[in-house]
Amino acid sequence: MSVAANSKSALDAVLAAADAGLEATRERLFALLSIPSVSTDPAHEADCRRAAEWVAADLRECGFSAEVRDTKGKPLVLAQHAGPGDKAPHLLYYGHYDVQPPDPVSLWKSPPFSPALVEGPNGPRIVARGAVDDKGQVMTFLAAFRAWHEATGSLPVRATVVIEGEEEIGSPHLEPFLVAEQKQLAADVAVITDTGMWNIDTPALTTRLRGMVYTEITLKGPDRDLHSGIFGGSALNPINALTRILGYLHDAEGRIAIPGFYDDVRPLDPAIAAQWQGLGFDESAFLGAIGLQHPAGEHHRSGLERLWARPTADLNGIWGGYTGHGSKTVIPSEASAKLSFRLVPDQDPEKIVACLKRFLAAHAPADARIEVKVFASSGAIEVPLDTPFVCAASTALAEEYGRTPVMMGCGGSVPVVESLSRALGISSLLMGFALEDDQVHSPNEKFEQRCLEQGIRSHARLLAALG
Amino acid sequence: MSVAANSKSALDAVLAAADAGLEATRERLFALLSIPSVSTDPAHEADCRRAAEWVAADLRECGFSAEVRDTKGKPLVLAQHAGPGDKAPHLLYYGHYDVQPPDPVSLWKSPPFSPALVEGPNGPRIVARGAVDDKGQVMTFLAAFRAWHEATGSLPVRATVVIEGEEEIGSPHLEPFLVAEQKQLAADVAVITDTGMWNIDTPALTTRLRGMVYTEITLKGPDRDLHSGIFGGSALNPINALTRILGYLHDAEGRIAIPGFYDDVRPLDPAIAAQWQGLGFDESAFLGAIGLQHPAGEHHRSGLERLWARPTADLNGIWGGYTGHGSKTVIPSEASAKLSFRLVPDQDPEKIVACLKRFLAAHAPADARIEVKVFASSGAIEVPLDTPFVCAASTALAEEYGRTPVMMGCGGSVPVVESLSRALGISSLLMGFALEDDQVHSPNEKFEQRCLEQGIRSHARLLAALG
Repeated sequence: MSVAANSKSALDAVLAAADAGLEATRERLFALLSIPSVSTDPAHEADCRRAAEWVAADLRECGFSAEVRDTKGKPLVLAQHAGPGDKAPHLLYYGHYDVQPPDPVSLWKSPPFSPALVEGPNGPRIVARGAVDDKGQVMTFLAAFRAWHEATGSLPVRATVVIEGEEEIGSPHLEPFLVAEQKQLAADVAVITDTGMWNIDTPALTTRLRGMVYTEITLKGPDRDLHSGIFGGSALNPINALTRILGYLHDAEGRIAIPGFYDDVRPLDPAIAAQWQGLGFDESAFLGAIGLQHPAGEHHRSGLERLWARPTADLNGIWGGYTGHGSKTVIPSEASAKLSFRLVPDQDPEKIVACLKRFLAAHAPADARIEVKVFASSGAIEVPLDTPFVCAASTALAEEYGRTPVMMGCGGSVPVVESLSRALGISSLLMGFALEDDQVHSPNEKFEQRCLEQGIRSHARLLAALG
Repeated sequence: MSVAANSKSALDAVLAAADAGLEATRERLFALLSIPSVSTDPAHEADCRRAAEWVAADLRECGFSAEVRDTKGKPLVLAQHAGPGDKAPHLLYYGHYDVQPPDPVSLWKSPPFSPALVEGPNGPRIVARGAVDDKGQVMTFLAAFRAWHEATGSLPVRATVVIEGEEEIGSPHLEPFLVAEQKQLAADVAVITDTGMWNIDTPALTTRLRGMVYTEITLKGPDRDLHSGIFGGSALNPINALTRILGYLHDAEGRIAIPGFYDDVRPLDPAIAAQWQGLGFDESAFLGAIGLQHPAGEHHRSGLERLWARPTADLNGIWGGYTGHGSKTVIPSEASAKLSFRLVPDQDPEKIVACLKRFLAAHAPADARIEVKVFASSGAIEVPLDTPFVCAASTALAEEYGRTPVMMGCGGSVPVVESLSRALGISSLLMGFALEDDQVHSPNEKFEQRCLEQGIRSHARLLAALG
């Protein structure tokens, strides 16, 4: 029943196959979501491997040669499809099968690894840890491949797929893999589906990403826990000292007060600023959805500029001393915090870490010993807008949604974009289908079924446009 | 084999009995230390009752009528001995059978509730949670009663014993009990053994105690955990906000920067200051023993003044966000800290809580909701020095140790002293045998066997002196 690949009727048949297969696609996604592949937690080692095996098997069904490759960390999936041959464009699809921890588990309305289909204001939605980040988004191109395979027996492009298992912990083993496999990964462009839309009716390409440095700071004082009655007033208290230092992190204007931190930050291009102004971003509604009313962060900057084009310093965790029920009159021997920075273009992660270390040392009281671990480090990215791939993706999205896609910024980092550029010299096409209210990294994470469906159709169209 | 109670030969016989029974005393103490009576942890409810029953049974063996009395919290032990009759002085002995949690358990060299006898520089020492605070110290007077009972068949005074099970959580049900049982508890003085010596050769009475207010602060922001990439730069981060507020807690001179905090603090009496100066307190050695070199706290104050006569603000615990291994890019919905204040005479705990609440509100950013719980609250104490009981205790200690006892201050609170004064109108004699390096509230808590032995003998002598 196959038809020729590069024709209008081929695309129509592919889209029909995608539509007909939607329920089966959702069932496959549920199977993948049921695997608790939490990469940061060593207890889920085997689950990560199971998720990789699942993805490889799915790709094989779509005509790919696929294998699970070991790394020094979690395994990754490498799959290839020759398409119509060597003259066709070569696309490298990237996604990740690992997910964030589900905690706090008590806030989930259904178990995080028992996917549920729940009716919402935009129709049915899929609720599970990883529903949108990134298993559901990966499913958009997996199902597009399947639709092409079913309708035409092949793909209209050469395709390589890399699905890693360490995105949520900073992808420590991805770049070495890309470097080692440089030859077979030498694609024309990377296609990444791990970003969002402007809203459920308005598609987007993301062309600007913040980078990130993620650190853990430990301040050590006395060599043991102390009774605060016996030692209080004489001994250094590490929690007092750590909170005092962290209290200096921002100035009264909401700027980060680490000397040197803004040295390499460029002012926002006025054309970009105007484009974003036109989006009519409603920050009150954005914050209202999470129970807040007042923007935090730098004063005298627009909401989208603060979210997409200004760096941040957020404490993601803090702990020390007695944290159980009731009271314990202890001065603990140490206290720790996880502190991450979102970076903008030209900020150098290593330089930021050096600035942080100097800042901590400058404010540390006598006897405090400070240790800094760096868990993740990646620069910010700006994607060039004038490539044939960006044009093809714009067209595919415009045809699917009936409106021009927005060129968005994104506050989060997608470090793989930088790795792909560095290791393979290729740029990335960031076409994603997440919505603002998808509860990414939070309890009750969800993915709209309509986003899944139109994501699949958009990928099918992009394949046709590039084939 | 009994001899008359109020004679020199009676005391000699009692001291001989105490010495002969030392090994049996230690075995009884080990049995009590084996019961993990952690009052702050609901999982140890039954252990607390077991400890109370154990103490009551021990007192019965020494001729007391003893019972375990229920309260709305942990049970307490009430025991009475008529001694030589109504004309004899009536002493009220107080102690507590509950202990602090043993965490961090990994730092113990032997299991916290498997008492060990370990050789140290001052001879054998008893290592266990509660070894000195307060089970070992309670054993000093229990064994003194036993020695009097064995040697004379009675006690030379009327004695009432109250051993509670909630000292480590602020004694919430002790004062109601004292008020309810006012009549049978109407003693001439209270004897409390929960304080320290100046050093192992130099006995002490403690005549000045700091009070305490123990609070838990929770700062709430967004109504759920957020992805720091999506919301960072716009949403209030509760850990950022909490550390920023806590960073204001002290000024550059180490003073507590809460407006109104020092309003009622009196300057230290110059005579007391001179007495303490004469003790030659070596703060470098005091801090050196815990791995520190530089005094923290208020500048331009002596070490003993900071420890015994100045208030403090110590963070005893802090938590929020992701505290597991690796990284999670979350902005949590809330963050919490445990903050306690050591108070000095004339500071009113309720007024301090009110000052704290105003301070927190003044520094809270927009959208932050702050909750304050108060777990414990007691004023500071100064004991009058000119009573016959203080004189008798001084004499007993001087005879046992061959040197005059020091009139010390104590940085920790013993809230029962205030409760006894308020509920029964009696003052307290604070005669204790703990040493500075006993690791109170820390891993590897210990009690020197020599302190146990001389503590028993001192209590035996005090009974003779008052009989």
